[in-house]
Amino acid sequence: MPLQPSWVESANTPETDFPLNNLPYGAFLSDAGEPHCGVAIGDMILDVTSAEASGIIQIEDEDEVFFFGDWTEFMALGPAVWAAFRAEVTRLLADGYEGAPELVEHMVPQVGTRMVMPFAVSEYTDFYAGRHHATNVGTMFRGAENALPPNWLSIPIGYNGRASSVVVSGTPVRRPLGQLKAPDEDLPRFGPCARFDLELEMGAIVGQPSEGMVSVGQADEMIFGYVLLNDWSARDIQAWEYQPLGPFQAKATATTVSPWIVTRAALEPFRCATPKRERPLLPYLREPGPMLYDIALEVGLAPEGKPETVIARTNYREMYYSAAQQLAHHTSSGCPMRVGDLLGSGTISGPEPHQRGSLLELSWGGKEPITLDSGETRSFLEDGDTLTLRGAALGDGYRVGFGACTGQILPAGAVPDWAQD
Amino acid sequence: MPLQPSWVESANTPETDFPLNNLPYGAFLSDAGEPHCGVAIGDMILDVTSAEASGIIQIEDEDEVFFFGDWTEFMALGPAVWAAFRAEVTRLLADGYEGAPELVEHMVPQVGTRMVMPFAVSEYTDFYAGRHHATNVGTMFRGAENALPPNWLSIPIGYNGRASSVVVSGTPVRRPLGQLKAPDEDLPRFGPCARFDLELEMGAIVGQPSEGMVSVGQADEMIFGYVLLNDWSARDIQAWEYQPLGPFQAKATATTVSPWIVTRAALEPFRCATPKRERPLLPYLREPGPMLYDIALEVGLAPEGKPETVIARTNYREMYYSAAQQLAHHTSSGCPMRVGDLLGSGTISGPEPHQRGSLLELSWGGKEPITLDSGETRSFLEDGDTLTLRGAALGDGYRVGFGACTGQILPAGAVPDWAQD
Repeated sequence: MPLQPSWVESANTPETDFPLNNLPYGAFLSDAGEPHCGVAIGDMILDVTSAEASGIIQIEDEDEVFFFGDWTEFMALGPAVWAAFRAEVTRLLADGYEGAPELVEHMVPQVGTRMVMPFAVSEYTDFYAGRHHATNVGTMFRGAENALPPNWLSIPIGYNGRASSVVVSGTPVRRPLGQLKAPDEDLPRFGPCARFDLELEMGAIVGQPSEGMVSVGQADEMIFGYVLLNDWSARDIQAWEYQPLGPFQAKATATTVSPWIVTRAALEPFRCATPKRERPLLPYLREPGPMLYDIALEVGLAPEGKPETVIARTNYREMYYSAAQQLAHHTSSGCPMRVGDLLGSGTISGPEPHQRGSLLELSWGGKEPITLDSGETRSFLEDGDTLTLRGAALGDGYRVGFGACTGQILPAGAVPDWAQD
Repeated sequence: MPLQPSWVESANTPETDFPLNNLPYGAFLSDAGEPHCGVAIGDMILDVTSAEASGIIQIEDEDEVFFFGDWTEFMALGPAVWAAFRAEVTRLLADGYEGAPELVEHMVPQVGTRMVMPFAVSEYTDFYAGRHHATNVGTMFRGAENALPPNWLSIPIGYNGRASSVVVSGTPVRRPLGQLKAPDEDLPRFGPCARFDLELEMGAIVGQPSEGMVSVGQADEMIFGYVLLNDWSARDIQAWEYQPLGPFQAKATATTVSPWIVTRAALEPFRCATPKRERPLLPYLREPGPMLYDIALEVGLAPEGKPETVIARTNYREMYYSAAQQLAHHTSSGCPMRVGDLLGSGTISGPEPHQRGSLLELSWGGKEPITLDSGETRSFLEDGDTLTLRGAALGDGYRVGFGACTGQILPAGAVPDWAQD
């Protein structure tokens, strides 16, 4: 499918993340400081909340679906409503739409507009489904022979994360404090994390609830859309805390998502298959069709006041398990899934060194610091660094992108008096 | 403090869980099938939602705090409101209250009334803070020398659980399906859990949000109240899935809480200290006073159609870490806590064999099945079994109890066609 033209001129260039083919959903602060729902088109946002209030947009016989500036209520209405709304917004923004002059007053420029969380995260689950990432991390921690845990080729390994710390792109991230103990120290101490890291991931948003177990095909239909996701990770806190029950405070400081939710519909042309299975999957995890997406991804790191270096380039198609497989597995015990659940893909690394989606891997546990264009080196993140994830599915003369997923590292807060020896 | 008499006669006996000293908060279905908030007193419930609607109860200048039959909004109002409300309900239900006749129409008998979830669980975190439990499980899995992980005496180890699967007492629990692989099997299979277990825990409900790190003393002030909590656990699913990132589907089927939230205020007379520290805690985890509670606990198991056997008796004071310590640790990375977060204490086992809070421990991994009064034996739970947790702080001629926390095991559902080989 080629670029679909819009009457919003800036949407008709091969460089924009937001052509008519995309139409991703976000939320922003209106002039009055209220959250509004919006659809990105070129360098503009269609203010869906105000368009609904003025009667231009109407979701079936529902009132004020977008009143609170949050897509959760819309998601809950289900796939038929998702499809009808997308068709209607496509019609409104397509080149030649006669009502365009009336819509112009509901258009807001993206530049200078503050984005907010586009949906309420019910619960957040993070997976560990990238083969190269798991192999890299496993090799560092357990040696090359024992790199992949025995269950890894059978289970999309996941753990529950913390929904309350999911933030939208642009939110600064404060370096965490925590318990730290180096292998050569006898006792732990409490202080700032020294090995603060990013994890390049995709997030899948569950748009429909489940009761009981669902198949991979049903799970795919429940997914509302995808975001870029940075699962900030305190490697030193994690190393000391994670046995035996998994990461906890190491992953609880913040998880940043892109401001725009790219719908499953917009990504349809970019579906691709998971890699060949090394060990046959159990039937409940088998895919009825291609469930991954070909999405080019990159990570930029800019030290404070310095230009950015792209430190990694990879692709979502490198994952071993798809979000639909992860969601199906998530329901296998009878666990109810809810509208607004967020599933992190796991770190997306490719087979080559420059394709690694974390500094842990890029610097090989800090042993091989990477050099930035500015000449500085990095093993882990330093205060003032700004991290930016970018991603786009690349079509024929257009791209379906997510906007930047960014966060700047603030210095750790002081250890309170009562927490000092 | 002795028993405080109420005009509700059944509240004045030493046997009731619900004397005037207690006044726990729950939610129930009204005659019209709507959830209402209630306070237990003897064998009755004061219908707080209807009492508010009729003007007998008024929370400051707030309207309809109890309208939706859920305590979440009330919790969010904070400790001063909690204290004022408790004082007012104590006045209304105390012996000699002159307006008692007017209150009678807002009293509902507990018998025959269906309880529902008393609050919306924001997120659920489960801990592993019982010394005896951790030692027992560690001994079974890693041998007596390596029983406690190296971090255990320094960190209240926790992992995020699944809020969507928290259910109120009385909800049947369906035996989960899942991936299973015995050590002598080459490949996993998908089928019903064969080692389904209970975990006897207390749950602490976070009633105030945090931003940034809080001290143990501040954490204590944030706790609204406590419930009994059964963290149903699929041991065979867990054994295969839990490395390296912790339990996931093994703990996602259901977590049952008691219908009544016993407030921190009601438990004040029963505060007691955590045990002597074997290794000094870091200052951020030190307690400004006694933070545990002396609460006698027991577990009953009744096979279908047979009488119940009490299979374990223990006490909440056996924990090594208090809920306040757990909550303080939870915020140490900057993780925001929210109203309605639920913290499971971890399995509460005492030093003696009959004080163990799980069948995994009671039957020592299934090797030493226990014998019930009916003559049947149990290594793990069987279909039809009803599990009941009970707990009460024992005062001078009265008890402050939680009501029964119960659940019956239903047989696993059939494996769907698409999940079969």
